Amino acid sequence: MNSVEIRRFVDTDWNGSGHGDEHGREQGVDEHGHGGDGHGLWEVWHEVVAAGESYDNDPASTEQQARSHWLLPPPFEVWVAVEDGDVLGTYKVGPNKGRLGDHVANASFMVSTRARGRGVGRALGEHCLDRARELGFAAMQFNAVVSTNTTAVKLWHSLGFTIVGTIPDGFRSTRHGLVDFHIMYRRL
Amino acid sequence: MNSVEIRRFVDTDWNGSGHGDEHGREQGVDEHGHGGDGHGLWEVWHEVVAAGESYDNDPASTEQQARSHWLLPPPFEVWVAVEDGDVLGTYKVGPNKGRLGDHVANASFMVSTRARGRGVGRALGEHCLDRARELGFAAMQFNAVVSTNTTAVKLWHSLGFTIVGTIPDGFRSTRHGLVDFHIMYRRL
Repeated sequence: MNSVEIRRFVDTDWNGSGHGDEHGREQGVDEHGHGGDGHGLWEVWHEVVAAGESYDNDPASTEQQARSHWLLPPPFEVWVAVEDGDVLGTYKVGPNKGRLGDHVANASFMVSTRARGRGVGRALGEHCLDRARELGFAAMQFNAVVSTNTTAVKLWHSLGFTIVGTIPDGFRSTRHGLVDFHIMYRRL
Repeated sequence: MNSVEIRRFVDTDWNGSGHGDEHGREQGVDEHGHGGDGHGLWEVWHEVVAAGESYDNDPASTEQQARSHWLLPPPFEVWVAVEDGDVLGTYKVGPNKGRLGDHVANASFMVSTRARGRGVGRALGEHCLDRARELGFAAMQFNAVVSTNTTAVKLWHSLGFTIVGTIPDGFRSTRHGLVDFHIMYRRL
């Protein structure tokens, strides 16, 4: 984790430092040799959604659908965990509801399988809670944590969230079939 | 309720039969004399949202924001309860989540104060449950029933819904201040 930085998303993070135009390729090659195949946010999003285990989006979603889903306009913010130009994980945070419910935040998280077990999810979660407090939110709500995504459920419990409700059979997991959604919540 | 019809929304329902262009005014005047001041869906939406007691939308929402919120594209459907050309109430129904959660329906309801106590909400609720079954949904979920909206909470209980979760202080009610949101659910 020492070499991992959490910072605001910028456009060039979408495809990673090693993809895209000449400028990207030039900048992307660093002393670790990661530049040539830098991993972008789109790759992380695609990997997570295609697995069909934690997000309700169509596993066959296009890149444009990914952009529409993740790169929400303000007041939403997108943050990334980056190492040597590689996007390892990301979160987005913003109001969970409209005007009369916009004191409660919603947030979503993704971590690449390449980075799992390194504490990136926890670092993103802690960062997001701090950021939500800075933005003035009073609480944070997750609307649909898949019950078989035990890593996520444990992480959110350890970061102070409780399950305030469960939707039975709300999610069609690719591997597990019909499983529950948890609604998780904590005050900030 | 005998004279109330529940049918799919059509464009001319938005402003009501007595408003709008020449054509609307001409058609709107019927033998009951209701045509000249026909009430449209926009009026119902505005009345309900401006009260700030049951929807999280900005009470000062514009007509365009109302359209974007209520007239969702397919697969969502909008239905209206109409009497003599007046829109008394409405519901919309569609998937609550994306592809891997689209077997659970979401629905929203509004009834004009002019029509309260006449069973319009119950008739819309029963109609919506039947329609959701026809559309193949396995269950229905309400994400945010305001706890102080006791008429709605009682109605949904009587139509087989249970509270599966509560978000404490999730809603800033105009009259009651911070109150809870209930998540309500039933299988179909």
